[in-house]
Amino acid sequence: MSSSVSNSDRKIVTGPAGYILEDVPHFTDDFPDHPTYPNPLQDNAAYSVVKQYFVDEDDTVPQKIVVHPDSPRGTHFRRAGPRQRVYFESDDVLACIVTCGGLCPGLNTVIREIVCGLSYMYGVKRILGIDGGYRGFYARNTIHLDLKTVNDIHRTGGTILGTSRGGHDTTKIVDSIQDRGINQVYIIGGDGSQKGAAAIFKEIRKRGLKVAVAGIPKTIDNDIPIIDKSFGFDTAVEEAQRAINAAHVEATSVENGIGLVKLMGRYSGFIAMYATLASRDVDCCLIPESPFFLEGPGGLFEFIDKRLKESGHMVIVIAEGAGQDLLAESMEESTTLKDASGNKLLQDIGLWISQRIKDHFAKKMTLTLKYIDPTYMIRAIPSNASDNVCCTLLAQSAVHGVMAGYNGFTVGLVNGRHTYIPFYRITEKQNKVVITDRMWARLLSSTNQPSFMKQDKIHSNQLVGEPGTMKW
Amino acid sequence: MSSSVSNSDRKIVTGPAGYILEDVPHFTDDFPDHPTYPNPLQDNAAYSVVKQYFVDEDDTVPQKIVVHPDSPRGTHFRRAGPRQRVYFESDDVLACIVTCGGLCPGLNTVIREIVCGLSYMYGVKRILGIDGGYRGFYARNTIHLDLKTVNDIHRTGGTILGTSRGGHDTTKIVDSIQDRGINQVYIIGGDGSQKGAAAIFKEIRKRGLKVAVAGIPKTIDNDIPIIDKSFGFDTAVEEAQRAINAAHVEATSVENGIGLVKLMGRYSGFIAMYATLASRDVDCCLIPESPFFLEGPGGLFEFIDKRLKESGHMVIVIAEGAGQDLLAESMEESTTLKDASGNKLLQDIGLWISQRIKDHFAKKMTLTLKYIDPTYMIRAIPSNASDNVCCTLLAQSAVHGVMAGYNGFTVGLVNGRHTYIPFYRITEKQNKVVITDRMWARLLSSTNQPSFMKQDKIHSNQLVGEPGTMKW
Amino acid sequence: MSSSVSNSDRKIVTGPAGYILEDVPHFTDDFPDHPTYPNPLQDNAAYSVVKQYFVDEDDTVPQKIVVHPDSPRGTHFRRAGPRQRVYFESDDVLACIVTCGGLCPGLNTVIREIVCGLSYMYGVKRILGIDGGYRGFYARNTIHLDLKTVNDIHRTGGTILGTSRGGHDTTKIVDSIQDRGINQVYIIGGDGSQKGAAAIFKEIRKRGLKVAVAGIPKTIDNDIPIIDKSFGFDTAVEEAQRAINAAHVEATSVENGIGLVKLMGRYSGFIAMYATLASRDVDCCLIPESPFFLEGPGGLFEFIDKRLKESGHMVIVIAEGAGQDLLAESMEESTTLKDASGNKLLQDIGLWISQRIKDHFAKKMTLTLKYIDPTYMIRAIPSNASDNVCCTLLAQSAVHGVMAGYNGFTVGLVNGRHTYIPFYRITEKQNKVVITDRMWARLLSSTNQPSFMKQDKIHSNQLVGEPGTMKW
Amino acid sequence: MSSSVSNSDRKIVTGPAGYILEDVPHFTDDFPDHPTYPNPLQDNAAYSVVKQYFVDEDDTVPQKIVVHPDSPRGTHFRRAGPRQRVYFESDDVLACIVTCGGLCPGLNTVIREIVCGLSYMYGVKRILGIDGGYRGFYARNTIHLDLKTVNDIHRTGGTILGTSRGGHDTTKIVDSIQDRGINQVYIIGGDGSQKGAAAIFKEIRKRGLKVAVAGIPKTIDNDIPIIDKSFGFDTAVEEAQRAINAAHVEATSVENGIGLVKLMGRYSGFIAMYATLASRDVDCCLIPESPFFLEGPGGLFEFIDKRLKESGHMVIVIAEGAGQDLLAESMEESTTLKDASGNKLLQDIGLWISQRIKDHFAKKMTLTLKYIDPTYMIRAIPSNASDNVCCTLLAQSAVHGVMAGYNGFTVGLVNGRHTYIPFYRITEKQNKVVITDRMWARLLSSTNQPSFMKQDKIHSNQLVGEPGTMKW
Repeated sequence: MSSSVSNSDRKIVTGPAGYILEDVPHFTDDFPDHPTYPNPLQDNAAYSVVKQYFVDEDDTVPQKIVVHPDSPRGTHFRRAGPRQRVYFESDDVLACIVTCGGLCPGLNTVIREIVCGLSYMYGVKRILGIDGGYRGFYARNTIHLDLKTVNDIHRTGGTILGTSRGGHDTTKIVDSIQDRGINQVYIIGGDGSQKGAAAIFKEIRKRGLKVAVAGIPKTIDNDIPIIDKSFGFDTAVEEAQRAINAAHVEATSVENGIGLVKLMGRYSGFIAMYATLASRDVDCCLIPESPFFLEGPGGLFEFIDKRLKESGHMVIVIAEGAGQDLLAESMEESTTLKDASGNKLLQDIGLWISQRIKDHFAKKMTLTLKYIDPTYMIRAIPSNASDNVCCTLLAQSAVHGVMAGYNGFTVGLVNGRHTYIPFYRITEKQNKVVITDRMWARLLSSTNQPSFMKQDKIHSNQLVGEPGTMKW
Repeated sequence: MSSSVSNSDRKIVTGPAGYILEDVPHFTDDFPDHPTYPNPLQDNAAYSVVKQYFVDEDDTVPQKIVVHPDSPRGTHFRRAGPRQRVYFESDDVLACIVTCGGLCPGLNTVIREIVCGLSYMYGVKRILGIDGGYRGFYARNTIHLDLKTVNDIHRTGGTILGTSRGGHDTTKIVDSIQDRGINQVYIIGGDGSQKGAAAIFKEIRKRGLKVAVAGIPKTIDNDIPIIDKSFGFDTAVEEAQRAINAAHVEATSVENGIGLVKLMGRYSGFIAMYATLASRDVDCCLIPESPFFLEGPGGLFEFIDKRLKESGHMVIVIAEGAGQDLLAESMEESTTLKDASGNKLLQDIGLWISQRIKDHFAKKMTLTLKYIDPTYMIRAIPSNASDNVCCTLLAQSAVHGVMAGYNGFTVGLVNGRHTYIPFYRITEKQNKVVITDRMWARLLSSTNQPSFMKQDKIHSNQLVGEPGTMKW
Repeated sequence: MSSSVSNSDRKIVTGPAGYILEDVPHFTDDFPDHPTYPNPLQDNAAYSVVKQYFVDEDDTVPQKIVVHPDSPRGTHFRRAGPRQRVYFESDDVLACIVTCGGLCPGLNTVIREIVCGLSYMYGVKRILGIDGGYRGFYARNTIHLDLKTVNDIHRTGGTILGTSRGGHDTTKIVDSIQDRGINQVYIIGGDGSQKGAAAIFKEIRKRGLKVAVAGIPKTIDNDIPIIDKSFGFDTAVEEAQRAINAAHVEATSVENGIGLVKLMGRYSGFIAMYATLASRDVDCCLIPESPFFLEGPGGLFEFIDKRLKESGHMVIVIAEGAGQDLLAESMEESTTLKDASGNKLLQDIGLWISQRIKDHFAKKMTLTLKYIDPTYMIRAIPSNASDNVCCTLLAQSAVHGVMAGYNGFTVGLVNGRHTYIPFYRITEKQNKVVITDRMWARLLSSTNQPSFMKQDKIHSNQLVGEPGTMKW
Repeated sequence: MSSSVSNSDRKIVTGPAGYILEDVPHFTDDFPDHPTYPNPLQDNAAYSVVKQYFVDEDDTVPQKIVVHPDSPRGTHFRRAGPRQRVYFESDDVLACIVTCGGLCPGLNTVIREIVCGLSYMYGVKRILGIDGGYRGFYARNTIHLDLKTVNDIHRTGGTILGTSRGGHDTTKIVDSIQDRGINQVYIIGGDGSQKGAAAIFKEIRKRGLKVAVAGIPKTIDNDIPIIDKSFGFDTAVEEAQRAINAAHVEATSVENGIGLVKLMGRYSGFIAMYATLASRDVDCCLIPESPFFLEGPGGLFEFIDKRLKESGHMVIVIAEGAGQDLLAESMEESTTLKDASGNKLLQDIGLWISQRIKDHFAKKMTLTLKYIDPTYMIRAIPSNASDNVCCTLLAQSAVHGVMAGYNGFTVGLVNGRHTYIPFYRITEKQNKVVITDRMWARLLSSTNQPSFMKQDKIHSNQLVGEPGTMKW
């Protein structure tokens, strides 16, 4: 490639016509003379007829593909897949897998396919599961994983390895990796966990260890940037529809019925948006990215009043992170809504807004509000067929990348192709619904809900930025 | 029949060997010379080959069928089904259907099958739906129902007629029946609604109207006595398992994970009990019939502590009516747990007990509790195949009974046979889980949970009485 | 009891007012001085509060419960359930379980609950699974079963023990039972397998062995007499609706579309009948019990012609055993329809009738027929919640009966109560849809299909006899 | 743009660095002075805050996105979406929608969303449905479509418009379009139907009519080239797993059990391949693209023999178009396998191969083969959530394109972006599984099945060509 700039953190390669490759670290960066071995897949009967099996070293995938005839070529990522030569001998590999953070459909499939990929494709025999998230590296025994252990786990939701939040102590974790002789680390986790993976990778490099670290990004909220879609998202949207259907039935069965469904989405409203688009029964979708207010002209109460008068019932979908400003404000004003033990109940936007709606209309009309929170029923189901395939390919891409010597990367689908992405690109910011983008306009058009923006804010709106993924 | 005693309320017939028939009123009680007509089914091609089609007038079904060689024959109910002669001319019928109370899977199927039964079997053309429960009799327009209107409604949950609680004003309702010329009233509703039906029937009789009133008992909680099982119950238990599965997955994925599922059951724990038996993942099932306490030896906290130490996770199922005494007590002691607008949030036993568990263990161990309330997702689904057949037969039994001149009755499955039951028998008390009976012992044996009874209470326990239905 | 007549095969007890008990054999019949032990359940914490737990020795359940005030009391069966004293010491028990014949939803649940029942309730530790049906007694190793092995098996369809047809060699089987020291045999299987169980029991008695034999009747077709309903039936009907829905969608999407669904039912059309009643989209339901013919007035072709002209599409459900007389006739006439290797394809009534319909209308109109055979998709699914509870109670009843010394019996739900039934009563004939009974009339009325009977046959019809079960 | 070559058929624009745009026709090609109007979306409240709503005229999407730093830019397609100006006044629009060919999940959603898109977004009021496919243009009345008609249709499988194969008579169709005054034609159909659309468009152009023709490609087999994935495909794969699960349960429950599942795929094995990858229970997947043979070393029988000896059971998935060469050969050799009326039965590869397997092993071992054909159950189900969103966006893209004056195009997802593709590009060849590509290697690796290729054919293999889509 033409030219390359690399500092400790970033590895940028440039080419003609504005071509940029944001590359990921490689074993040879630190160990230029690291020996290589022929990829065992060459001897695998299944691959003997596959001429196009190995990925060309120069294959890259553009981040931006809506182009003009003469637009610059822009940022690219390295294409994932098996390489002709690998940097590990199968018998030397001691791999480990850890799952961190909240549950998400497909975790077990990813675990299963890392194990199957290492075993079937590369003949690796020693694979450990870390018990209960990062903390498990230093506070727990490891779990032995093999083809038999993982055979049926994809039929069940959750993670057989257990998970936890926090517990990231870089020194202790890398000590454990070093002491146990682990040389491949697969980290399945969200935003925070990928930052943890970056810290682990940095420490490993600092200590000069020959240990590969790969991340598989997990976020049921789909709030990780760059990638098309996170695994489990399709399954989550599918399942969310069950709750919306129930809310619709409840709402239409009584006079002035409101069905209120809270869906996941602490900072990003993707599940709420897609579930609303996939369903057809939602009258109002509230997400963190789109501020709203309750009282007065253009507010939520006015819209509820209007919609109930028009059609006698309505369904509201609210992402858990929506309206947190209102909630915070309300907490300050009023102490009567608190309970003794820490306000836990009241921080639930769904319960809070249910109460506010009931209070507001208490004297005006008789309404019946049914509140549904399907969060844990959504998180805990097994992944559907398309997510199963998605998880399989993510797992295989991670394994191929690690065997090929890439390091400190996360795997991700970019414009339908699997790629290796530097950690910093997926942790430096969050993917959000761009409310000035077309998908949100489609939603507004299908629900006919107002924008809930105060007129003066529309033009000063700062939410534009880079459009989100999946913007079709 | 041998002998008969009847007062204004009850119509009792006795026979040899202790035989008792608790009969239902009949048109001829008040109108001895009421004309009759041949049943139109006799001309229906479908029935032309059915020799056993019409029910013998003397057919009855015993309430108690576990018998000894010489035990008295006991109480019987009149068998449901078509009779040779009917008391309405098809063209004169103006029927109405009303649904009252909370949603339950199968409501639409019952509505559909009353319409189909009246139309197909008896050639009735004028059928009205009452909009939004009892209140609809006097405060709303009626809804026209025919075969086309109801064709697909059984595929959807809820009720196309709408429903409401309360709104029962006997005088206004009977005025409306009289003024509109309605002569058949089908009332689908629970305990309270059946009491309302009894009041309507009484008033109709008082006014000397020739109007038939039939109830179809509806209770998702299965808390109506005498009958084997209420429609929608199988569907509800099936759906409840989804929530239990999710709770199990959540609980097993973290250290000291507790999955807590609240199920319906204000006064009776049948759904909780059957869902626990049908699932295999529940460690503790709490129902209204079985008192429990939290602290000290033999209490819930001790059991949670023990189970978490043994297996690291647990699933608790709690019926909404369980532990209301604890909740009430707690409300009195503490006013800090109240909110300004009526304590609504805090009366939820699921939220309350979640908080209590968290508080109790806060200083002892790190536990992760996930609370799932699938109530509205369960109530709102369409009925499954077996409930569909069940609803069909209930509806047809009601129609046959009304056409045959029976009146002031509810239809119900007794020991697998459809019968006509006097209103008072199903409203005079509630069906409850008998915790000194075998089914509950089976549950205790499968969960291995303690009885949560203080030793001194066991022997003075008053819950024995008549065993519940479905006691296999 | 008053008086008792017993020959080698039957054990009949009579009582006052025409009371008859068709009893099952008991250990004490052959070993009058067999020692007994207190039931271990008495020490089980779960049962300590259950006063009504043990079944009274005299408890029986009537077969016929639609009664007249002075009708004779008729046949009864012994009520299932735990007894105060048992005939096995837990440590001496060596139990085995075998599954025979075709798959049926719930097999694994029954296996699981026999194991759980023996272990939890009676402390039995040695339980064997017989591999692959009867043949496994002598041709295979046994499979060790314990609580851990069976923990999750109810979530999967099929049978973990494997199954097969035939392979019944009484001598070899009883040799194996004797040689291995097995003293409790649980046989889950249909009609033929229960006859096999009877033969095994007879041989065991002849040899004077102290071995208990209990049957759990399995038939997805619901063709076993006496009992209310066989396990798995609800699940099968539920799943059959999926195929009917698909047939309906296919039929309505094209001009003159016919959706033809073949359902199980070699000799009895229960699944076809209930699936038709539970669904609402079937225009014609053909079952083995109701003969039909194709050509000429009143025949199937005429009806198809009529229905297509009326509504442009139709759905036909056919039980696999329907129309076998037509098929046999056709086979004789024509040899061109045979293939070389045994006619297997052509004995499929669904394929055959599809071809006949296409041929008949080939020159008259363009029709599009879609044939759906969901048989194996229905048989192989896990049981639903209500079947899960049903399987649990059957398994527990069998275990209680065996422990209590009853022998040579099958368990079965009779009028909603679990009972012990002599083998001969459930194998001497098959349960069939009684086409002169009300349920079939309901079906005819809902599909509006003709009776397909030639007029002269209607009155000579011999199908009346004893009405089938589930006749509500 | 830099330069442009256009003949009657193709409209090619080239740019720097090898940039090529394969453009679609536009109204202005034939009517250079056609008036334009502001897009009504500009006044739509929902879009008022969406700055990025309208698509830039120069936006295009590359076909090939795995690139090297200096690779030529290659073929692009025009990006779909709304334009600032439109070529129809809403009141003048008379649109029609037709569905052709076999059923596919999502047809009703596409119909619904074309109607909703035209109505909500562009204020179009006159929309017709064509009844029963192409034939309906001239042989049937049209169906009135509005928001109310289509409101709930996406919940049901099939197509409310009806469909048919063939019936394409260009002259009659264009006559009908002209006579009825239709000026927008939306054609939802497969390969053949899109060729029909091209012919209609050509004829319309020839007659100089101002009529827009847009295609929405439909193929459950995913055999349309260029596009990432066809609508309904995810749903089909999901549903196919049910059949595979059943086959697995049947196979594992008997000795030497084989579960054989036939899936859709006349010329392309995508459903079979993805269902095999998404499931984990398939031992052998046979598709049209990968030839196989039965007898001798390396053949299917040998593999079956081996696998049964190893694990006692196996699951085979076969696409309907696989092995047609074997079938044809067999037909020639043997006439005994034919039936009188046209061989229909025998052309079913599933039935044929089932028989061949049974025959082959008849003398060698007892095996039990269960054959499952879920085709119509898969085709007829409603689309899942992700397909619902997919259908919505396809429909909206088609509407936007037509309103913006584009013509003679099909909409399609290319690398995750919606584009307008010339008809010829999607009809000139079929998308096929590339068996020398990685996805197929993954499958072989997961099933461990042999390649079934005779050694001499491997190197002369001609199937390489352009790799299929979805090759991740």
